[in-house]
Amino acid sequence: MNILVTLDNKYLLPLRVMLKSLFMNNPVESFDIYMVADGLTDEEEKRLEKFCACHGSHLHPITIPNGRFENAPVIRYYSKAMYYRLLAAEFLPKDLDKILYLDPDILVINSVRPLYETDISEHLFAGCMHNGLIAISGYVSKLRLPDYESDFYFNSGVLLMNLEAMRREVNPEDIFVFVEKYKEFLILPDQDVLNGLYGPRILPVDESLWNYDARQFESYRISSQGEKDMDWVAANTAILHFCGKSKPWNKKYRGRFSALYKHYMHLTDLNITHIKA
Amino acid sequence: MNILVTLDNKYLLPLRVMLKSLFMNNPVESFDIYMVADGLTDEEEKRLEKFCACHGSHLHPITIPNGRFENAPVIRYYSKAMYYRLLAAEFLPKDLDKILYLDPDILVINSVRPLYETDISEHLFAGCMHNGLIAISGYVSKLRLPDYESDFYFNSGVLLMNLEAMRREVNPEDIFVFVEKYKEFLILPDQDVLNGLYGPRILPVDESLWNYDARQFESYRISSQGEKDMDWVAANTAILHFCGKSKPWNKKYRGRFSALYKHYMHLTDLNITHIKA
Repeated sequence: MNILVTLDNKYLLPLRVMLKSLFMNNPVESFDIYMVADGLTDEEEKRLEKFCACHGSHLHPITIPNGRFENAPVIRYYSKAMYYRLLAAEFLPKDLDKILYLDPDILVINSVRPLYETDISEHLFAGCMHNGLIAISGYVSKLRLPDYESDFYFNSGVLLMNLEAMRREVNPEDIFVFVEKYKEFLILPDQDVLNGLYGPRILPVDESLWNYDARQFESYRISSQGEKDMDWVAANTAILHFCGKSKPWNKKYRGRFSALYKHYMHLTDLNITHIKA
Repeated sequence: MNILVTLDNKYLLPLRVMLKSLFMNNPVESFDIYMVADGLTDEEEKRLEKFCACHGSHLHPITIPNGRFENAPVIRYYSKAMYYRLLAAEFLPKDLDKILYLDPDILVINSVRPLYETDISEHLFAGCMHNGLIAISGYVSKLRLPDYESDFYFNSGVLLMNLEAMRREVNPEDIFVFVEKYKEFLILPDQDVLNGLYGPRILPVDESLWNYDARQFESYRISSQGEKDMDWVAANTAILHFCGKSKPWNKKYRGRFSALYKHYMHLTDLNITHIKA
């Protein structure tokens, strides 16, 4: 299964936790992890390669050609890394047809195979809306992006990518023009671009399974008339996404999934592979 | 490593979760699980045997001789199973010198090896006091057991047992006499007997490592000046004990370790061994 991650070295620890949880809770899979990384040292990269190999998976570091984004517009304090995700098809091997992009602030607690097998032949992406916040997001994004008509606002943290279709339809120039035009309005640039340019080309999939906002336990539970309680989440949710500013690897984090996240963080540290001698 | 469990069939699910967590977080160990069970069917016992074998461990069901407790006093609604733990040495193979007793309402999240290696050659047991509650427990137990002078009140859910010493010192008649004498006062009979008769013969070990009361996160954190936060627990605590009436396998449970427990419950259900094909 192909996985795409993009990160800078500040997110190396969470990336490892995310991968550890992915490996442990998908024990029958072998993963090809494509990574577009900024600022990792050779040693960090080698360690990560070893870590993946230990779990029967393979790391493929992707190099962005020098100067590729020389003429791309820049927004405030955002680095050019904001383009890596949307332009992934350009940098990945040409024989890949499909890849699952995952943010590093994620814990994978069940199989991602059913998501990976989702039919996106007619779409560019499969992704999730964060419904708990949709009324606000839809409103805000309409204010910010006056041309954007859709009621959909997708979170860009988990995206199943149809790379073949992306190679045909995703034009870097469109993106640069869009960013230039709306740079004053864009708050989460790559997510806003994703929605603004490609919203109607995204297949919506169930957020409570594939991009569960870890802050919204009560919303999911109440809006499902109590069905989606903690037992349900443990048995069904595959991807817990720690959205927002408060991050579970920080000392002061106090979310409902804190003990679970810290446990995986510790397992990552130990790098126990759960294979008996 | 020798493990002792005692249970009736109501606790079969939590027992499996406890064992699953023990196996997963002690991946280099092989366990001999001695079980004194009431009312398990042959099929349940076989399934449990298989479950242990899957993880490289061995289940040894222990049979209590018929009529062994015919003349033992009974307290209210407590079954004679209350004697199994204290009289374990009588029923276990004579060549065992040491065993770790674990309640089923436990999650093991780190290695129990250091506890197992604790030197108890001069004691009957190693066990933990629950300090968050000690002031109350000490007081209550003094009221209830007027002969009991110690300030110590040990929780009987995790006990490292010196079986050799128990064979010499633990006299069933003493226990029966004690129960008969105090039957009006005993609230948690086996725990009260443990403390009343053997309190001074127990080596106290750190509860935050070996018998962490899952209800008391804030007490541990505050009384350690913030040191024992969730990161500390994930990295150091080996045994999380879900004391009290509210149990984490119930639908309505809402403790701080709820997501972690439910996750292991789900893994137990899947019985993923984390060994790749």
